[in-house]
Amino acid sequence: MNGTEQAQWECSSAGFRDADTAVLCIKDGVRHLLEKVSAPGHALSAIAAGAPGVTDVDAGIVIATSYLMGWRDVPLRAMLEDAFHAPAAIDNDVNLAALGESWTGAAKGVPDFVFLAIGTGVGAGIILNGELFRGTNWTAGEIGYMLVPGAPATAGKRNQPGTLEGMIGGEGIREQWRKYGNQTMLPNNLTATQIFDHALTGDAAAEDLLQQTSTLLARAIYNISLVLNCPLFVLGGTVGMHQALYDATQTALIQLNLRTQPRLLRSVFGPKAQIIGALRLALDTAGALC
Amino acid sequence: MNGTEQAQWECSSAGFRDADTAVLCIKDGVRHLLEKVSAPGHALSAIAAGAPGVTDVDAGIVIATSYLMGWRDVPLRAMLEDAFHAPAAIDNDVNLAALGESWTGAAKGVPDFVFLAIGTGVGAGIILNGELFRGTNWTAGEIGYMLVPGAPATAGKRNQPGTLEGMIGGEGIREQWRKYGNQTMLPNNLTATQIFDHALTGDAAAEDLLQQTSTLLARAIYNISLVLNCPLFVLGGTVGMHQALYDATQTALIQLNLRTQPRLLRSVFGPKAQIIGALRLALDTAGALC
Repeated sequence: MNGTEQAQWECSSAGFRDADTAVLCIKDGVRHLLEKVSAPGHALSAIAAGAPGVTDVDAGIVIATSYLMGWRDVPLRAMLEDAFHAPAAIDNDVNLAALGESWTGAAKGVPDFVFLAIGTGVGAGIILNGELFRGTNWTAGEIGYMLVPGAPATAGKRNQPGTLEGMIGGEGIREQWRKYGNQTMLPNNLTATQIFDHALTGDAAAEDLLQQTSTLLARAIYNISLVLNCPLFVLGGTVGMHQALYDATQTALIQLNLRTQPRLLRSVFGPKAQIIGALRLALDTAGALC
Repeated sequence: MNGTEQAQWECSSAGFRDADTAVLCIKDGVRHLLEKVSAPGHALSAIAAGAPGVTDVDAGIVIATSYLMGWRDVPLRAMLEDAFHAPAAIDNDVNLAALGESWTGAAKGVPDFVFLAIGTGVGAGIILNGELFRGTNWTAGEIGYMLVPGAPATAGKRNQPGTLEGMIGGEGIREQWRKYGNQTMLPNNLTATQIFDHALTGDAAAEDLLQQTSTLLARAIYNISLVLNCPLFVLGGTVGMHQALYDATQTALIQLNLRTQPRLLRSVFGPKAQIIGALRLALDTAGALC
């Protein structure tokens, strides 16, 4: 039990929303995995799960998820323990990704850092003094709603500026792109990473959107740095991992000229960061690491 | 030795800039104070000092001050220990104010909170898990440079938005006020608190500037809340303590509709918050509190 991956298994949550079905799905997966490595059921020492939402780690409850599921107060830890007769632990998915990078990834040995997950949405996992900092109501790092200069007002809310997620999240970028319709020959339904790919090959509209995204991301990092003064930010998520976004954000951040400039790194584990964090959490839960 | 104030003494730093003169000035003050309470020199168990700048608490060095003094790498703790032959401790002044409010003020019993000092400038003292959080390079909470929507671009930096301090710090507010020249019968050299007083008595220009200030302050609190999810913000400093600013910021913050709305309180100790924090630090340094 040293943190080496023995097998993996995937299932999609498309087609269902309820937690019971999700747990059945996980149960099915674990059965497959145990078979694959020829291990008996009682070999399962612990189970850890990440939830895409606000998670009460102490109580083992997913308080709310924004995407897909729409869960409210789901006692996921107890459900997993009932299903597997093994100790379970749960946490927010971005927190687990931060934990993974902290354990053996880009932030190994760095006691204070921020993991920025930029995929469909935007969130942060914050590690302070070597520990996840989750906030009083488990919502620390919910920076998707952050107000940064340069984001236009939210539709219908004239006096309220736009949010970070609406501008630099994957969905937000796709929406911005549709406004470039008459400035580019490219299709108007590109994803954020496709748009950034085209920025690298010289499409002026894509370059412009990349520039805007990186400027806003750098401003968010700058604002968070002023609060936390931590020496490292790690970019993760499908959008956040893109090399062109990384390079442009690095440049924009240097221009903002912070007194103590944080390092900016890309996630080592990419889409697997969360899994590595869950592995670490499961090892902790099993008492295998001290 | 229970934290009760026995005597106070003031001296101005106007007319000198160097640390040696400041320490002589403190020495003179301590002599006066000891005489006042008829205590011998060896009754001084410890000394604590707040510095208006970035302070390395471990090394006892004031790394940099922005205002007035312009200190760089001043070993203030050692200088105080040499002068008084007693253990000394130093910290950033806003951190000390946060410590004071945490100890016996507005944040007593609240493990996570942010103290916002708004005077000439703007800074934050952050308490997490009951302890001051100072950041890797001692600059956590230096939010004066925060970029918030609604602040116009910095002069000469077309693409760089204005900073929080430039808009809601005392100096920034005075500067904004001068632009209202033809919209008010009031003099153009009012201080921030005078302007807010006039907002309360119905001057439309003063009301407008109060509104703008509170909107930007609420956005800063909102952004910090998204990062830290702490349940309390305490407003301090001569500008931050103004009742009109407090009321308007409270209203603006509620309109921003955070998932978990933090409480907003005014400092209990006002201009003395820093002194109370220094007292606590001195008691800790003397080993009088466990």
